[in-house]
Amino acid sequence: MSQVNSPYHRRKHLAEQIDFPVLLWSGKPSPRNFPANIYPFRANSHFLYFAGVSIPNAAIRLDGEELTLFMDDPSPGSALWHGIEPTRAEWAEKIGADKHYAIAELPNYGKDAATLPVQDFATRSLQSEVCNRSLPKTLTGRDLDLARAVISLRMRHDEAALSEMRQAMEVSIKAHQAGMEATKQAKTEAEVRAAIEATFITHQMSPAYCSIVTVHGEVLHNDRSPHPLNPGDLLLVDAGAETPGGWASDITRTWPVSGKFSATQRAIYEVVLGAQKRSIDRIKPGVEYEKIHLEAALAIAEGLVDLGILIGEPESLVERDAHALFFPHGIGHLLGLDVHDMEDLGDLAGYATGRKRSDRFGLRFLRLNRPLESGMVVTIEPGFYQVPGILNNPQMREKYKGVVNWEKLAQFADVRGIRIEDDVLVADARAEVLTAHLDSAPDAVEQHLYTVD
Amino acid sequence: MSQVNSPYHRRKHLAEQIDFPVLLWSGKPSPRNFPANIYPFRANSHFLYFAGVSIPNAAIRLDGEELTLFMDDPSPGSALWHGIEPTRAEWAEKIGADKHYAIAELPNYGKDAATLPVQDFATRSLQSEVCNRSLPKTLTGRDLDLARAVISLRMRHDEAALSEMRQAMEVSIKAHQAGMEATKQAKTEAEVRAAIEATFITHQMSPAYCSIVTVHGEVLHNDRSPHPLNPGDLLLVDAGAETPGGWASDITRTWPVSGKFSATQRAIYEVVLGAQKRSIDRIKPGVEYEKIHLEAALAIAEGLVDLGILIGEPESLVERDAHALFFPHGIGHLLGLDVHDMEDLGDLAGYATGRKRSDRFGLRFLRLNRPLESGMVVTIEPGFYQVPGILNNPQMREKYKGVVNWEKLAQFADVRGIRIEDDVLVADARAEVLTAHLDSAPDAVEQHLYTVD
Repeated sequence: MSQVNSPYHRRKHLAEQIDFPVLLWSGKPSPRNFPANIYPFRANSHFLYFAGVSIPNAAIRLDGEELTLFMDDPSPGSALWHGIEPTRAEWAEKIGADKHYAIAELPNYGKDAATLPVQDFATRSLQSEVCNRSLPKTLTGRDLDLARAVISLRMRHDEAALSEMRQAMEVSIKAHQAGMEATKQAKTEAEVRAAIEATFITHQMSPAYCSIVTVHGEVLHNDRSPHPLNPGDLLLVDAGAETPGGWASDITRTWPVSGKFSATQRAIYEVVLGAQKRSIDRIKPGVEYEKIHLEAALAIAEGLVDLGILIGEPESLVERDAHALFFPHGIGHLLGLDVHDMEDLGDLAGYATGRKRSDRFGLRFLRLNRPLESGMVVTIEPGFYQVPGILNNPQMREKYKGVVNWEKLAQFADVRGIRIEDDVLVADARAEVLTAHLDSAPDAVEQHLYTVD
Repeated sequence: MSQVNSPYHRRKHLAEQIDFPVLLWSGKPSPRNFPANIYPFRANSHFLYFAGVSIPNAAIRLDGEELTLFMDDPSPGSALWHGIEPTRAEWAEKIGADKHYAIAELPNYGKDAATLPVQDFATRSLQSEVCNRSLPKTLTGRDLDLARAVISLRMRHDEAALSEMRQAMEVSIKAHQAGMEATKQAKTEAEVRAAIEATFITHQMSPAYCSIVTVHGEVLHNDRSPHPLNPGDLLLVDAGAETPGGWASDITRTWPVSGKFSATQRAIYEVVLGAQKRSIDRIKPGVEYEKIHLEAALAIAEGLVDLGILIGEPESLVERDAHALFFPHGIGHLLGLDVHDMEDLGDLAGYATGRKRSDRFGLRFLRLNRPLESGMVVTIEPGFYQVPGILNNPQMREKYKGVVNWEKLAQFADVRGIRIEDDVLVADARAEVLTAHLDSAPDAVEQHLYTVD
């Protein structure tokens, strides 16, 4: 499939699955503090997938194989501020649209169309108006049918998508390497974050999500970097680039600020890395992703029993969710145009039809629960964290009495948070770890940090 | 005035000017492509000014000297993802609130209150609901009275504000220096942009607006950096840091990629710099900002006549707006919490009561038109651009027939865009150029680019 024509093929495949027209919006730029000061525009992912281009304030209508573009021409004065921009007719030709109309025409093309709500509230109001109905969070009717059809397509990536994601991953790997390099001299988390994000910018990419660059990895979504770096700290870096076309990557590495893991840090690191390897080894089409999560949980329980931190038989510890005291999140998620791919649709993409989130402490944060299929890209990201809110919680202490050797655990005080995350392509033959060449072996990490230029 | 207490003093001053209660919202984080993936949160500027802290999904009510905080406590599970966050009671104490309630209580405190609409559409809907009225773009009644009172305060900066802005400016200066340094080796605009924004990140600041780093300075708001750098290019950099408290800075420098201005580049650069100096020299309380704009226009007209690009008598060229062929924008704007300070209120802050934007080609983009007052910070940013959309426009060619020496202009083809911008504090004694130590003299710029480490 030609990369240039991939949105055309995607639209064709969608047309084979549904028998009603579709309207998809790109969304509006979000203002920062006044209308002329906006966040960098990022088009809605469904629009990007089927249009193949990022145009603010635009919509496409797909009706069988017919494509119609709705947008307004740039205003006469805008060339002074924004340069010569393509006209609607030029965009229409570029994306292969059969017809094109001004935004004001949209109400005449909305009432019979299924749609997917975009993120920005202003556009969502417009969608509601054009489609003449409210758009509740829980999709129903044709909108739900559309969502299922779109999910079935976006779940299994075409060559064009994979090519874009590989580009994003290459830049993310360079960024992590730059982060390790910067750690040698850096005095603060912020300096390392600067090196990472500068690498994104140099390659004309943006962060696919708020980068996490922290010596407090035990705060899972720690998106600020205010701390100094101390020689005994582990630095957890979860940072991924996004291509200009909107395709994401998502990589986590954890490295010692000093360049050398302590014995306790290395021991836990090996447990997490081992869990990751075992999980990745099980990836193939047909395997339940939840099984992979539980495999990682078991590996972590085994490792922590070996280290004397957990007490008991690993299988039954996992059944009791005792691993989740230290590994409280899911093993990963879908990756694509969104870093949590299609999470705008709630759990519709992540969870197979009829399945719901578990109440179990060890399963409730699992974002993906369906059999793997060839062409999916998933993250595999086990971790170990000492979260005060969990470990000091009296109910938890009571529930897991006798399961944790607290004196032993106290010896591992220099391990607040470790996570290792790679992006994996599910394939018929053998799963491919797309980010494997950012070597996560502890010796390799140390060597990278010690490299003399 | 103590910096710590400055929001308290600001609230006190506001209470002296109005006799009705006020509700101000901080706003919601804007989602990027799904709810959990957000742009870095930036609170509404009016909220920041009077609360002094950045809290998402919060509101404050000011009733005389009484302060009430509305926000919800962090959810029990959020500590896992976001760490231990302050409770509402802790925030209330920190900001000196007398009372504090959950968001659900807001409807009981909104109907009698004046408000200012925030930027994000979702919060604006909530505001409308709570205040029980639509909030049109053009403010009326109490909301308009509130806006005028807030403008009168925010227009003249207190010591705390100036201290924050000075910090932002110091980081911006370091960023520009890093950009010059990077230019020595860089092959692309993006590499220079990376060095600039990395400096912001290192100092825990963000861009106050989309950085402009471009060899096509003739596109005024060119917020992408896709071009390679060629030795003959001028690089225009308009980039400013914002403090975590939300205070902005705004600096533009233009430098030669090769490290040496060509004779033609230097000649035009001197004209722009001369215009900037003459403008700054006229800044003092009581002077009309429009006069300063026209002084810059005159200086540019004189310079271009001297170079043989414009033909005629400078005063009458400015009267005919001929300078605007090359300097089509305004000389600057207010600077504060917003980079175009209070532009969320339209021209209410920028234009003195009763004044409106001019239709004149040479005046219509002027963002500030009122007498200067001590304590204001304004930008002074003259420029010279060869904008194809202006210079190749047949109507413009006709209107300014005989005014431009096109053969002469052709000799200056290597000057697409030059702008030089500093931030200036209006003071009773003498205006202070707060960003002066980023030397803009052409020799100094060349020297910086040639400096050997």
